[in-house]
Amino acid sequence: MLGKFITFEGGEGSGKSTQARLLSEQLWRVGVHTFITREPGGSPFAEALRQVILDPNMPPHSALSEALLFYAARADHLDNTVRPALNSGLWVICDRFIDSTRVYQGIAGGLPGEVIDTLNEMIVSPTYPDLTIILDVPAELGLGRAHSRRVDKVNPDTEADAYEKRDLAFHWKLRDAFREIARAEPQRCVLIDAGLDERVVFSEVWRAVQTRLFALAR
Amino acid sequence: MLGKFITFEGGEGSGKSTQARLLSEQLWRVGVHTFITREPGGSPFAEALRQVILDPNMPPHSALSEALLFYAARADHLDNTVRPALNSGLWVICDRFIDSTRVYQGIAGGLPGEVIDTLNEMIVSPTYPDLTIILDVPAELGLGRAHSRRVDKVNPDTEADAYEKRDLAFHWKLRDAFREIARAEPQRCVLIDAGLDERVVFSEVWRAVQTRLFALAR
Repeated sequence: MLGKFITFEGGEGSGKSTQARLLSEQLWRVGVHTFITREPGGSPFAEALRQVILDPNMPPHSALSEALLFYAARADHLDNTVRPALNSGLWVICDRFIDSTRVYQGIAGGLPGEVIDTLNEMIVSPTYPDLTIILDVPAELGLGRAHSRRVDKVNPDTEADAYEKRDLAFHWKLRDAFREIARAEPQRCVLIDAGLDERVVFSEVWRAVQTRLFALAR
Repeated sequence: MLGKFITFEGGEGSGKSTQARLLSEQLWRVGVHTFITREPGGSPFAEALRQVILDPNMPPHSALSEALLFYAARADHLDNTVRPALNSGLWVICDRFIDSTRVYQGIAGGLPGEVIDTLNEMIVSPTYPDLTIILDVPAELGLGRAHSRRVDKVNPDTEADAYEKRDLAFHWKLRDAFREIARAEPQRCVLIDAGLDERVVFSEVWRAVQTRLFALAR
């Protein structure tokens, strides 16, 4: 049987990678084998492009050019990591996916949604997520977390990237855009308040996974 | 008045950059102001991506991922170089453009032509070339020229790139594909035998430009 495809979305410091790890651990505990991956990246070529995408020294470019770079990485990640894992029955948990493109390059960057729809049909279809968990935090709280993560050296090789350096109004726009996606696609998406303690947030994540995926999978 | 957009296409060592330069010089002589550019590249972001695209150490990836990288660069090149130049009345002469993508990633790489059509509609339209000159040489001759260009240090910073290192059968496939494009789009394309001396080849190039563009432009 095919594995399930679960994506985590949300702004900087919303806890995506923490919740992805907690979910993976919990799924293994109940006997579901998982594979954690991330975007941009998740395969050798896509990780190489990640360096290009996140390099703050790259010359300025349009949201269209940036989206095409993300889809160059995404096509590789899907072909070499996500689809093979799903086909082998693993549940794939991905930190950021198509909704981040729609939010960062689309809604915040001004790229028309139809362009992203066309790229999704060309490159992502039919591998859409079975469940997307959108972690919702106020922009100040998320940015504060991302900042202290570096200062505290919890993740010392993480530098402030090109996105994190944008101003607060930009990050509020991102948050609104993620909330709008959750409203527009309620079958696929669950919006979770991620401003609380990570164990409290995880109880909501786990409830969503059980409600949305276990009823179908078992 | 808008400038004209002329592209040169063909395999390795077919003389594209030489003929582009000769054409530019001749056009200035007759009072037409020109701008020479190239792909991948031609704008700061696109030139940065050129380094990524031509790096033989990048991890292996599909023709689809590669095409998306080219279009990320192409979108930037069109927005920041080609369209502003055409709008200011310059004739733009470009060394490689959409036909190279159709040949390298499409016909030789296996990417369906419809994907390239969709990317062209999304990113290139309406800036299609007014004239495309396809320089046709046998693969052995072209590769031999590209090789001796490096050995003779005419262009010492040119290294054999990822494409040039492919086998001869691949380069014959490219040649056939370029000839097929010339047959399929006779309004836009002219196929010129580029196996002769560069001045002889240029007389054919100049004849094509006069026949195809001056009748309309003057």
